[in-house]
Amino acid sequence: MPRFSQSVSALRSSAIRELMSLASRPDIISFAGGMPGNELFPVAEVEELFRGLDDKSKRAAFQYGPTPGLPSLLESLGGYLERKGLPVKTNRLMVTTGSQQALSILAKAFIDPGDRVLTEYPCFIGAIAAFRSCGADIASIPVDEEGIDIAMLRKEAERADPAKFLYITPYFHNPAGMLYTTERKQQLIEALQGRDIPLIEDDAYGDLWFSEEHLDRLKPIKSLDPEGLDVCYTGSFSKILGPGLRLGWMLAPEAIWEKCELIKQSADACSPSFTQVIADAFIRSGKIDTYIASVRQEYKKRAACMTDALRRHLPDYVQWNEPKGGFYIWLTLPEGADATAILKRAIEGGAVFVTGSTFDPDGTRNNTMRLSYCNNTPGEIERGIPIVAQAIRAVCG
Amino acid sequence: MPRFSQSVSALRSSAIRELMSLASRPDIISFAGGMPGNELFPVAEVEELFRGLDDKSKRAAFQYGPTPGLPSLLESLGGYLERKGLPVKTNRLMVTTGSQQALSILAKAFIDPGDRVLTEYPCFIGAIAAFRSCGADIASIPVDEEGIDIAMLRKEAERADPAKFLYITPYFHNPAGMLYTTERKQQLIEALQGRDIPLIEDDAYGDLWFSEEHLDRLKPIKSLDPEGLDVCYTGSFSKILGPGLRLGWMLAPEAIWEKCELIKQSADACSPSFTQVIADAFIRSGKIDTYIASVRQEYKKRAACMTDALRRHLPDYVQWNEPKGGFYIWLTLPEGADATAILKRAIEGGAVFVTGSTFDPDGTRNNTMRLSYCNNTPGEIERGIPIVAQAIRAVCG
Repeated sequence: MPRFSQSVSALRSSAIRELMSLASRPDIISFAGGMPGNELFPVAEVEELFRGLDDKSKRAAFQYGPTPGLPSLLESLGGYLERKGLPVKTNRLMVTTGSQQALSILAKAFIDPGDRVLTEYPCFIGAIAAFRSCGADIASIPVDEEGIDIAMLRKEAERADPAKFLYITPYFHNPAGMLYTTERKQQLIEALQGRDIPLIEDDAYGDLWFSEEHLDRLKPIKSLDPEGLDVCYTGSFSKILGPGLRLGWMLAPEAIWEKCELIKQSADACSPSFTQVIADAFIRSGKIDTYIASVRQEYKKRAACMTDALRRHLPDYVQWNEPKGGFYIWLTLPEGADATAILKRAIEGGAVFVTGSTFDPDGTRNNTMRLSYCNNTPGEIERGIPIVAQAIRAVCG
Repeated sequence: MPRFSQSVSALRSSAIRELMSLASRPDIISFAGGMPGNELFPVAEVEELFRGLDDKSKRAAFQYGPTPGLPSLLESLGGYLERKGLPVKTNRLMVTTGSQQALSILAKAFIDPGDRVLTEYPCFIGAIAAFRSCGADIASIPVDEEGIDIAMLRKEAERADPAKFLYITPYFHNPAGMLYTTERKQQLIEALQGRDIPLIEDDAYGDLWFSEEHLDRLKPIKSLDPEGLDVCYTGSFSKILGPGLRLGWMLAPEAIWEKCELIKQSADACSPSFTQVIADAFIRSGKIDTYIASVRQEYKKRAACMTDALRRHLPDYVQWNEPKGGFYIWLTLPEGADATAILKRAIEGGAVFVTGSTFDPDGTRNNTMRLSYCNNTPGEIERGIPIVAQAIRAVCG
C-alpha cells in the first residue's frame, strides 16, 4: 500500500457517489442533486456570444491566463459585484475553478492538520470535504430558520484557542434552504469582531430569490465591510450560467488574497480561459441579467410545485421550510427517525434524496433530509413526492 | 495578520510573475514563457466541432460532470493513450484541471509537512510550487543529457527513510530540454524497484518530437509497467490543443487513483465539462493527430531557427543542447556566472528569458538559463538572440 499523507489516509469515499449514479437512472426520480436543469442552460446565447468574439479574444480563450483571472473578466465581474454593494475596490477579486476551489484554497491557507474550524450544522458537503482534506477538526453550530445559533457561536468565539475560521452559507442555505435575517447577521458580526476568526461567506445561491421583499436580507455581510472581521466572500457562476464552466470567485482582503494566489498557482495555474472569455461576454452583453431573471421564475415555479405536493402528501410530524429562493427544502423528522431507512424505501419506490447525516460534519445526526426541486419537471415532482411521503410513513409511522 | 497554516506561511511569491508581466510588453522579445504561440491554436477547427455537436452534448458542456472526468472523454483519451502503449486497462485514468492539478493532487496524496520528496535538478517550477505548498522538503538530483544521475538516485533510494516519491519530466525536459535515453530509464526503474518510492512521470511535451528516430526513447516508463514500482503518469492538452482549456490527466494504479479522486472532489469537484466536451470531439474527429503533426513541424522550424542563431552569436564557453522536441533550450554558463545579472542586461536590450535558479528547488544555482522558442517568430528570434548573447558577454566576458 502506498504511504499516503496523514490527512489523506483518513479520507473515505462518501455515499454521495453511489447516490448520484442512482440519480442518473431514467427510472428514478431524483431530488438528490444540486445541479440546474440541463434544459435551462443558455446554450444558444453562449454559442452566439462566442461566435461574435473577435479573433484575439478567441485565441486568448485557448491560452494560459494570469492566475487570479483574465483582466477583462475581473473587471466585468467586479462591476457585477459592485452593483450588489460589495467592496471590490478595497479588497481583491480572484476567479477560481468553481467556488469549490475557493473553499479548497481558503482551507489550505488556514488549516494545519488538527486545527479547529467552525461550520454550520447542517453544512454544504463540498466545504466539509475541503476542510477535512486539510486535516481540519470541524465543530458545527446548528442553524434555525433565522441563521446560526448565536449563543453557541459566542462560546466558540470566546475560547482561548480560537478556531481558524467560520464558514457559513447564509443565503438560501445548502442544504437547510433558509435565509439569514438581517438581525442574525448583525449578531454574528458582533460575535466575531476582534476575535481573530475570519468569516468565509459562501453566496452561491443569493441571486436566485423568489421575491424582492427579501433583497434586504440578501445583502452580503461582506458588503457591510465590518471592522475587526476579515470576510472572504465566495460566489459562483454555477447557478447563474452553468457549473460545467467551472468558474467561481473569491473577494478577500489583500493579505489573504495574496496567499490564496500562491496556492492557486500551485493548484491549477489558472482557471479555464476558455470559459472565462464566455463568462466575461455573458456579463458584458447584459445577458446574465435577463438569464438570471428567467431562471428565478423557473425555480420559483418548481419550488411552488414541490411545496404544494409536500403540503398534500407529507405527514404532519414532518417539519420543513417554505423556500424563499435557491434549490432546497430541508425536512426534519421526529427525533430518532432514520433518513437512511427512508431513503432505502424511497429507492424501492423510484425516488432519491440526500439524507441529513451527509451534511453533518460528525456524520451522525440523521433525522433530516434534503429535497432539491431545481432539476425536476412538475410531473416528476407530482409523481416523486408521494413516493417520498410513503417512505416516510413506512418508516416513521 | 491572519493566522495562516504553516506550509502556506512559508510560501513567497516568485520572480516569475514580474518576469511574465515584462514578457507581455510589446517592446520586449520574450524567450521566457512556456506557452504555445497564440497563432497556432486550432480556433476554427474547435468552433466547427462545437457547432456540430448535438444539443445533448452541448447541454452536458454546461453541467457538472463526474469528478474523474466525462465518460466519453475518458474513453477517447484512454484510446489515445493506449495507442502510445500505456496500460490504460490495468490502471485508472482521471481528467485533471491541467496537469498542474495532477501534480497538486499527487502532492497532497503523499506529502505531510516536512516529508522528503525527490526531483530532478533543474525541475519544472509548477512541480516545485505544488510540492512546496504541501510543506515538502525537496531533494534534487542533477540530470545530464541522458537523464537523472543514477548513482545519486540509488543513494537516495537506499536511505532508511525513503522519500515519498520521485518526480521526473523525461521527455523534452522543462527546463533542461533533454530527452532520457532508454538505458537511463531502465537504470532508473532498477534503482526504484521494491523501494516503496512511487514515480511521478510527467509527459507534457512527449508528443512534440522533431524526428521519428527518437520514438523509442519517448516510450513512457509507465508503458513498461515495471514490477515493484508504482508509476503515476501525467499528461496535458496544453501543448496539443490549448492550455486555456485547463485539461490534463493522470494514469495511476487503483489505490493511488482512489485517494486522488477524493482529493480532486474537494479541490474543484470536476474539471470543466465545457472544455472536456471539446477535447473529446477533438480526439474523436481525428483532428488531434493532424494538429499535433502540424505544430511539431512548426516548433521544429522555430527550434532550428534558434539553434542557428545561438550557433552564430553565443560565445564558445556557453554549453547548450540541440533540442529533439518540446519548447526549450537550456544554456549552461561557466561556473560562478550569474544569470540574474545577465537577465538585467538583456531586459535593457529588450529581451527576457528565465534564470536557472528559478528551476532549482534550493533556489541557489544560477549559472544556467532557459530559452523558449515556442512562442516566437523567426524574426523575433533573429533580433532577440544577439541581445541575449551580448548580455552574456557583457557579464561573463
